[in-house]
Amino acid sequence: MTALLSREEIEPVLTGSRFHQFLGIRLEEINDQSITIRLPYNELFYTSADGYIHGGILATVIDIAGYFAVFSRLNQPVPTVDLKIDYLRPGRAGDLLFTATVVKLGRTVSIADIVATDVSGKQIAIGRGLFSSKQE
Amino acid sequence: MTALLSREEIEPVLTGSRFHQFLGIRLEEINDQSITIRLPYNELFYTSADGYIHGGILATVIDIAGYFAVFSRLNQPVPTVDLKIDYLRPGRAGDLLFTATVVKLGRTVSIADIVATDVSGKQIAIGRGLFSSKQE
Amino acid sequence: MTALLSREEIEPVLTGSRFHQFLGIRLEEINDQSITIRLPYNELFYTSADGYIHGGILATVIDIAGYFAVFSRLNQPVPTVDLKIDYLRPGRAGDLLFTATVVKLGRTVSIADIVATDVSGKQIAIGRGLFSSKQE
Amino acid sequence: MTALLSREEIEPVLTGSRFHQFLGIRLEEINDQSITIRLPYNELFYTSADGYIHGGILATVIDIAGYFAVFSRLNQPVPTVDLKIDYLRPGRAGDLLFTATVVKLGRTVSIADIVATDVSGKQIAIGRGLFSSKQE
Repeated sequence: MTALLSREEIEPVLTGSRFHQFLGIRLEEINDQSITIRLPYNELFYTSADGYIHGGILATVIDIAGYFAVFSRLNQPVPTVDLKIDYLRPGRAGDLLFTATVVKLGRTVSIADIVATDVSGKQIAIGRGLFSSKQE
Repeated sequence: MTALLSREEIEPVLTGSRFHQFLGIRLEEINDQSITIRLPYNELFYTSADGYIHGGILATVIDIAGYFAVFSRLNQPVPTVDLKIDYLRPGRAGDLLFTATVVKLGRTVSIADIVATDVSGKQIAIGRGLFSSKQE
Repeated sequence: MTALLSREEIEPVLTGSRFHQFLGIRLEEINDQSITIRLPYNELFYTSADGYIHGGILATVIDIAGYFAVFSRLNQPVPTVDLKIDYLRPGRAGDLLFTATVVKLGRTVSIADIVATDVSGKQIAIGRGLFSSKQE
Repeated sequence: MTALLSREEIEPVLTGSRFHQFLGIRLEEINDQSITIRLPYNELFYTSADGYIHGGILATVIDIAGYFAVFSRLNQPVPTVDLKIDYLRPGRAGDLLFTATVVKLGRTVSIADIVATDVSGKQIAIGRGLFSSKQE
């Protein structure tokens, strides 16, 4: 399942919105199997109580990674329909990587699996997202 | 299932972290059935492409609302274990309300249902969260 | 959101397949808000170890109830896309009721919430299902 | 993550309940990474309308496969807490294989990923299950 879009075509869309710029996310890698997004360390995203990254930030970038995995194969808007996140363990402070793989490209709904890992390579959260891929 | 904590006890925890202050969330209402959190309008959270609020922001505040529904009954940290979000329809720009109801208070895991509504009262997303409520 | 189909129209579809006949499910009630399906007690569905009903049977009838909630409003096949089940507590041996409510009727995907209760009225499991409702 | 239990120890538990005997499921393979369960073809499980296997049967065996993946590593009852199924495509009539991999072994909750494939090797459904693994 080759990506339809190249890095050069995906990057401006990924970093084009102010909210994504605020997050600081960058396209780390794209290949035939998956797409990886980097979330640089930002102290704001960590809870003061325990130094762990906020679950909402993980959910946000998991959503984005899944979206772009599907988008890179279809080159059309693929609004998230349903998103499930499982939080595995607290992550170390530092950059995080989000790797998304397309599980199904469907005429109605497409599915992507997303894994979030911290700098030590430990999986800290996994997600599964359904994205609307209706051909207009 | 009465809340264990009062508004006065919950508010400082809800607004105590820099990330929650950044979001601008406020405790709107708490009663025996549910807790409601308000997310004031912030242009940053809307995508430039279509003027719709970013799904990650919805996921983030859905997570927070569910967390505080369970927290208000147990008065202990209740880390999110699993979160499912279904996006129902785009919302209008404006303040959003997130109402969370506890479905189950368990010795291992507790469950909350969360509904996000826009200013017109339309449901724009629903969530179901599992929170670790193991008594130490 | 009124049901399109009457009890007389739904019942033959619900009990028309051999698998549904094997389960013994019956249409208990249908009204403008919801549809309720009864699963009569069957010793086979209970695990010998602990006398609790098998989670797979709960998942099966939760799926069916959600399907028929959406089907009754659209009168077209609505294959299940995604199903989430949360098991709340073990149920008492006896008939079970599964009440399904449509949360969203969409042009691509529709959503139903399902609650399974035992004879004592206790909720034993909840489900949320996404059903393909693409108009052909 | 080596399995704690051998094939000889798992098989009698898997096939010990009347409901599992009714399904006809058998332990196909167990290795350090995963456990695979076979569901032999049974006409009863297929819907008369379209010849497709009933989604409830898929959910049932996905649940069982995930349960036994976690059980084989912990050797204690691990009741299902939460189960999510995504239906990918209709399967061909025939035996089905369900392969479950443990994603996380936790002190409170463990997670397994399950893939259901038909005889042609096509993935027809995927599941993610949370199982209670509280040490008593």
